[in-house]
Amino acid sequence: MIIDLISDTVTKPTPKMLEAMMSAKVGDDVFKMDPTVNELQEKVATMFGMEDALFFPSGTMANQTAIKLHTQPGDLVICDKYAHIYNYESGGVAFNSGVTCKLIDGERGMFTAKQIEEIAAAKPEIYLPYTKLICLENTTNKGGGACWDFEEIKKIQQVAKKNNLKFHLDGARLFNALVAKNETPKQYGELFDTISICLSKGLGAPIGSLLLGSKKDMTYGLRLRKLLGGGMRQVGFLAAAGIYALDNHVERLAEDHQKAKEIGALLGSLSYITKVEPIETNIIIFYVDEKIGAEFFINKMKEKNILLTPMGDGKLRIVTHLDYTDKMHEILLKELKNF
Amino acid sequence: MIIDLISDTVTKPTPKMLEAMMSAKVGDDVFKMDPTVNELQEKVATMFGMEDALFFPSGTMANQTAIKLHTQPGDLVICDKYAHIYNYESGGVAFNSGVTCKLIDGERGMFTAKQIEEIAAAKPEIYLPYTKLICLENTTNKGGGACWDFEEIKKIQQVAKKNNLKFHLDGARLFNALVAKNETPKQYGELFDTISICLSKGLGAPIGSLLLGSKKDMTYGLRLRKLLGGGMRQVGFLAAAGIYALDNHVERLAEDHQKAKEIGALLGSLSYITKVEPIETNIIIFYVDEKIGAEFFINKMKEKNILLTPMGDGKLRIVTHLDYTDKMHEILLKELKNF
Amino acid sequence: MIIDLISDTVTKPTPKMLEAMMSAKVGDDVFKMDPTVNELQEKVATMFGMEDALFFPSGTMANQTAIKLHTQPGDLVICDKYAHIYNYESGGVAFNSGVTCKLIDGERGMFTAKQIEEIAAAKPEIYLPYTKLICLENTTNKGGGACWDFEEIKKIQQVAKKNNLKFHLDGARLFNALVAKNETPKQYGELFDTISICLSKGLGAPIGSLLLGSKKDMTYGLRLRKLLGGGMRQVGFLAAAGIYALDNHVERLAEDHQKAKEIGALLGSLSYITKVEPIETNIIIFYVDEKIGAEFFINKMKEKNILLTPMGDGKLRIVTHLDYTDKMHEILLKELKNF
Amino acid sequence: MIIDLISDTVTKPTPKMLEAMMSAKVGDDVFKMDPTVNELQEKVATMFGMEDALFFPSGTMANQTAIKLHTQPGDLVICDKYAHIYNYESGGVAFNSGVTCKLIDGERGMFTAKQIEEIAAAKPEIYLPYTKLICLENTTNKGGGACWDFEEIKKIQQVAKKNNLKFHLDGARLFNALVAKNETPKQYGELFDTISICLSKGLGAPIGSLLLGSKKDMTYGLRLRKLLGGGMRQVGFLAAAGIYALDNHVERLAEDHQKAKEIGALLGSLSYITKVEPIETNIIIFYVDEKIGAEFFINKMKEKNILLTPMGDGKLRIVTHLDYTDKMHEILLKELKNF
Repeated sequence: MIIDLISDTVTKPTPKMLEAMMSAKVGDDVFKMDPTVNELQEKVATMFGMEDALFFPSGTMANQTAIKLHTQPGDLVICDKYAHIYNYESGGVAFNSGVTCKLIDGERGMFTAKQIEEIAAAKPEIYLPYTKLICLENTTNKGGGACWDFEEIKKIQQVAKKNNLKFHLDGARLFNALVAKNETPKQYGELFDTISICLSKGLGAPIGSLLLGSKKDMTYGLRLRKLLGGGMRQVGFLAAAGIYALDNHVERLAEDHQKAKEIGALLGSLSYITKVEPIETNIIIFYVDEKIGAEFFINKMKEKNILLTPMGDGKLRIVTHLDYTDKMHEILLKELKNF
Repeated sequence: MIIDLISDTVTKPTPKMLEAMMSAKVGDDVFKMDPTVNELQEKVATMFGMEDALFFPSGTMANQTAIKLHTQPGDLVICDKYAHIYNYESGGVAFNSGVTCKLIDGERGMFTAKQIEEIAAAKPEIYLPYTKLICLENTTNKGGGACWDFEEIKKIQQVAKKNNLKFHLDGARLFNALVAKNETPKQYGELFDTISICLSKGLGAPIGSLLLGSKKDMTYGLRLRKLLGGGMRQVGFLAAAGIYALDNHVERLAEDHQKAKEIGALLGSLSYITKVEPIETNIIIFYVDEKIGAEFFINKMKEKNILLTPMGDGKLRIVTHLDYTDKMHEILLKELKNF
Repeated sequence: MIIDLISDTVTKPTPKMLEAMMSAKVGDDVFKMDPTVNELQEKVATMFGMEDALFFPSGTMANQTAIKLHTQPGDLVICDKYAHIYNYESGGVAFNSGVTCKLIDGERGMFTAKQIEEIAAAKPEIYLPYTKLICLENTTNKGGGACWDFEEIKKIQQVAKKNNLKFHLDGARLFNALVAKNETPKQYGELFDTISICLSKGLGAPIGSLLLGSKKDMTYGLRLRKLLGGGMRQVGFLAAAGIYALDNHVERLAEDHQKAKEIGALLGSLSYITKVEPIETNIIIFYVDEKIGAEFFINKMKEKNILLTPMGDGKLRIVTHLDYTDKMHEILLKELKNF
Repeated sequence: MIIDLISDTVTKPTPKMLEAMMSAKVGDDVFKMDPTVNELQEKVATMFGMEDALFFPSGTMANQTAIKLHTQPGDLVICDKYAHIYNYESGGVAFNSGVTCKLIDGERGMFTAKQIEEIAAAKPEIYLPYTKLICLENTTNKGGGACWDFEEIKKIQQVAKKNNLKFHLDGARLFNALVAKNETPKQYGELFDTISICLSKGLGAPIGSLLLGSKKDMTYGLRLRKLLGGGMRQVGFLAAAGIYALDNHVERLAEDHQKAKEIGALLGSLSYITKVEPIETNIIIFYVDEKIGAEFFINKMKEKNILLTPMGDGKLRIVTHLDYTDKMHEILLKELKNF
């Protein structure tokens, strides 16, 4: 048995999800004629109280489309120095949109309204890129699954509004935040111009993300999706998994969070662990002491069929998820204790 | 019963294909750990005698990636004036690669080596875009499913080689050409730097295309796929459909061709049809006389639950495919006769 | 003495123009503080009855900026197959703007309103680039200095207006057309959203073009000019040459046209010349018979210190200009006669 | 009399420079036939011991061309957080090259080899932009005219070499560094793949920058210059000013530095000045106390015909230059003392 803690993207559909997939009604989604995709899109739009939603093959494409929707080449996007769009989307912000990122020096991937006030209000000067968009990521991936303070998000939205900036949420793990903080999708739908959500992380669907926004933005988004090569045919099989996931896998994210906290608590008590970042959802970031070293630790665990990920600078990451069972949890805790 | 002749992309998986999908072994393909995707990629690479292959969510993304692989912004791509990459990929050649198309005035989407000799050999002048790539499409979509003469392709490859140009094949319907002309994948694999093939047209899989090429090109292609947002997770469900299609649906393309020819023969004998383009595979392009008009004809057929497509300039298109049954064929022929 | 007929860009400032240059008041034009540049810009804007004008280091940058002003990446520009922006700007339309050209099959670089009606009115489909802009070039360079029929331009403007398209004029040699057809700048200023004009061709200034348009477009144009690297410092030296040229060198274009017609008349009477294109302004396009061949002819003339240009496909080009004197004219006619 | 201390770009040609311009031999530089441009390019290439050089209308275009030369869209450029290419070139790095900047947190615009070792050596991962280029700026503009330690540059070049990265120097004010540190152009020519230098700052020419590099890079650079719209015609007038500047205005930069130090010394002694950054060349960055405030101070000085520039965050900037005379210096010192 492999205990794969590399990412929550590694999950495989449950038998019931697979059943939902295989009995899906499908059609050609390039022509918007896939009934299951249409159902998923409407379901999610309603859930967030937004006008429209669009299915994407990946969260990267959903985010990249949002950025292109809101900018012209030469513009500036404000985001945290840990932002996924800057760090882990292959330089796509510049490649796809010709846009520059202004990185804010936040805490665990989160900044404050105060930190961006000046840059958000920058007068357009011909030698500066024009500020057009603010992007948040909730929960923060590189920030260790941290959840934003909703009151701070509201303040940032005020800054965006005041300065006529667009406001995008990379919600790859938004459902983790909703569950952890007891928030609702509609709270977010009210504040953002566009939101991307992912079906294939904690929710456990095999493929797919959605972008939410206004009818007008999603109409142009449809075209951008085609341009980038994301127009697919009988997508209903994937959409069915998404519908199933939304109906059945949201509440259970709490279990992943619980396990993550238990792992964190144990790590915090172990002498060879020098630091554990605060744990709010399903991501644990920690450091082993230099005598052991990150690489040695990872390899040693791999020998025990436990997979985890280096994050650079001596950091290690564990991610809990749908396929991380109670049994595996027991084994992991034991192996960590006895390392 | 709807008789959908709009495109061969509208097919739905057969029960056996669905079964293959349902029992697929899957993994996270972003990390290249999906065994079914890996199997499909190896299978196709072997079939074409090429080094490597890569799964894509769409043929558009496979083609766009190939063009980016072979060019720098500011370069020139030679293709036919009917080429799918120029006409039906949303302006992606300029958007994704910053590249200009030089359109050759071919016959039904096919040009000759002689027609491109001069432009292929153009000396780099600073005021000209640099010629870097020749693209063919086989069969030609806008050209009515026409098949290239393989000897001409060889001559064009000689022109490419002599002038140090790359050579890409948009093989969205290549299997139709192989079956119609009794050719082999390896013949093509020997000539081209990259080939895209589609699983979701005549082959009947729900989603997916592959790009074939050298190890080096596919390694960079993997990165470009990620950049464009085509990196997906448990893709094995889709790959399984592709494997099934390649094993079971290639030979049967001959049936689609046969039906297309029968439709064409009938159309040629009808007084209200002014012209039928030569039919080589599964696409029929024809014209109704002006008294009836293309739009009226389409609407009238739609009332009878028969869907077809206008191609501009008074042209109409019918495409036969896996889901176009004998029964439907019978009805269509009757309705055309009695129009 | 070299008789350089390669282009009207080869002229050198006259002594009086040089004097005007060297006594120019200058300032830092990046901060819009060069009084001579400001004077030139106002002068030209007033001349065309347009709101604003902007100085550029080249006509290519003025055109490229106009195209970027009016489009988003992925859009479509309608232009003639001979258009300078497509043929001689290094693929810049795709490089700088990510835009595709739809080439119209016109006559000598000029098409009709009827020819573009369908494409101008194309409904936005996700698989098509979106039509956004129509570009004309007057006079046409590759078309041999041909002048558009102003009534046809008006009709094309109606098509643009009706379909909400922008309308740009590449007026690199617009003053030749104005003089040849007895038209006024204001006639053009009324019809187009943006117009580029060149100071360094028939007008004889050493460097510089201007882009004309609305205040709003020129404000964003200023930024695009900076982005492309066209923001320069003490530009007044160049602007002074432009002011002098506009005041003193417009009327005299008639002399270049007269000489061009005399050369054409002679060429038409010579047995080794197989064809001379109609001559309306200062460009002569002609063909030598195959026994002589274009290359041989060019080399032979070069030996006599007469420089001319091959245009591909056996075409040759002669361009008359400010530095082509009566004496040179006499010599050229004699050498052509005695070839 | 206006005392303009906003930038060293505001200088106007001296009578002798103007004379040199006026008597320049010129030709059409698009065809590389301007003898004075050719002379300048050879002169500068020889001076730096590099293969070739190319004249540009601006330093921005020279830098942007260098970045495009060394990268593909999607790549990463390492530079300081103060770098001109990131901060003051309008977002051009993303617009023109589709490239992302990795900003290093240096001191006054300068980082160490150690700071970039990890990112320079980053293994290519598909989700990361690929590191391709390291850019330095010497002297640093936003860093207050600071000069790099040449030994550190050598170490950085070793990092570049080891990791197969290109190495570009933005030398907009390189001559200030050479004079201040008693270094030679050849020292730099040996280390960098490309270097841009500016003729219109301390050197006092009205327009123009040069890019230096290998023959191969400059050949492609010529094409990129054309693509961006930087191909100009009779550029010799500007090149002549550059030649004159290089022959006559390099040594005298020491005077600007001397005056800057005197201003700095005075500022350091004034009670209302809270901080003066170290002064190495011709840029003085300082802070007035909050009771006065930057804006009030600038306006007050403007009333006395003394112009200076806010840099954000309460910083003020003074730049000394060729047109800042001894007389002006006297007045400035007096006004500062009596403020």
